Amino acid sequence: MTDTWLTSLITDTPQAGFELAITLSRRGVKYTQPDGEVLHKLRPEYSEDADALIAGSQVVATNFQTVAAANNYWR
Amino acid sequence: MTDTWLTSLITDTPQAGFELAITLSRRGVKYTQPDGEVLHKLRPEYSEDADALIAGSQVVATNFQTVAAANNYWR
Amino acid sequence: MTDTWLTSLITDTPQAGFELAITLSRRGVKYTQPDGEVLHKLRPEYSEDADALIAGSQVVATNFQTVAAANNYWR
Amino acid sequence: MTDTWLTSLITDTPQAGFELAITLSRRGVKYTQPDGEVLHKLRPEYSEDADALIAGSQVVATNFQTVAAANNYWR
Amino acid sequence: MTDTWLTSLITDTPQAGFELAITLSRRGVKYTQPDGEVLHKLRPEYSEDADALIAGSQVVATNFQTVAAANNYWR
Amino acid sequence: MTDTWLTSLITDTPQAGFELAITLSRRGVKYTQPDGEVLHKLRPEYSEDADALIAGSQVVATNFQTVAAANNYWR
Repeated sequence: MTDTWLTSLITDTPQAGFELAITLSRRGVKYTQPDGEVLHKLRPEYSEDADALIAGSQVVATNFQTVAAANNYWR
Repeated sequence: MTDTWLTSLITDTPQAGFELAITLSRRGVKYTQPDGEVLHKLRPEYSEDADALIAGSQVVATNFQTVAAANNYWR
Repeated sequence: MTDTWLTSLITDTPQAGFELAITLSRRGVKYTQPDGEVLHKLRPEYSEDADALIAGSQVVATNFQTVAAANNYWR
Repeated sequence: MTDTWLTSLITDTPQAGFELAITLSRRGVKYTQPDGEVLHKLRPEYSEDADALIAGSQVVATNFQTVAAANNYWR
Repeated sequence: MTDTWLTSLITDTPQAGFELAITLSRRGVKYTQPDGEVLHKLRPEYSEDADALIAGSQVVATNFQTVAAANNYWR
Repeated sequence: MTDTWLTSLITDTPQAGFELAITLSRRGVKYTQPDGEVLHKLRPEYSEDADALIAGSQVVATNFQTVAAANNYWR
């Protein structure tokens, strides 16, 4: 990928940090499957499947650990 | 999402921190599937399935690591 | 949940910390499925299934990381 | 469980620490399924299944993180 | 493997760090299955499967934690 | 196991650290299934299965976190 999408892990608020964790999680998928059309077709498969939604939340939780540490937990 | 739901990781007690970890885990699902009705329909699929309940507890454990570190473990 | 079940992450011994990690893991399940009867019915499904037992041990390991760090590893 | 099996996370060597991580992983299973006979019957199910062996190694890796940190990485 | 592919965890930007995390995740696969032809044949199996894509993103998130810590979060 | 296979987590380079993480991951399997012949028979099951390869890479990523921290990230 040649576009710039991540220049800093620092965010103003914990919520913005959580949303950055969402972005990181999606990018982790996109590097393996860059074709937006394929991803779009897969959407029902994961967005209406409890196991996939929980697994997705696990990825977000892991990335949120990184972002929260980077921001010294917004203390 | 435009509503504000996360302004701080600091909680008064470990239990409140654990409950914040539950919130973070659910929000991680909601960002992928914001439709409350779909989530409601999935409820029996995960709340009565041992594997899904364990996977959900794994997400909570991961988020609790973050919240606990943010609160310096309430020491 | 309105009962108080977690007031501190500090324990006297590593083993008590490991047992607290077990409690945290079960509570992570209980917040999603608070109905004790449903959980009881699921018991054979996970307690006699190798995959579920390993997944459960993974949750415990994750929570034990948190408890051990809170106790400065009982050093 | 009333027996004492974990009094310290400190080990003399990294290898002893890794073996302690194995013990922690097995204990995480045993707290859920204390019946040794049931565990024995499950053995072929996980010890000859690649997915279960990898999942078991994941638990060990997580517990080894804890033990290694406790020992300041035996530096 | 005898080729040198990893000389440093330090990167100029968070995005380069994320891309290093992708590399580490792929190398983790390659050490187990070094045959590029086999990997190529498996590509449709994981790149068009939601569960596999999410699991892949989980590996990237874990490796990104390491790279981000190594870079002191590019603060 | 009575052989000595792990005397230090310190390595000269990040790549040697990654390779140590591979060793730790395999050892985590071997403690559960020490029979080399059984492991050999399982090889096609995991080395040609995308899900197993990704799960294996997850274990390596987790162990690499430990080794990298032990080496202060080779900074």
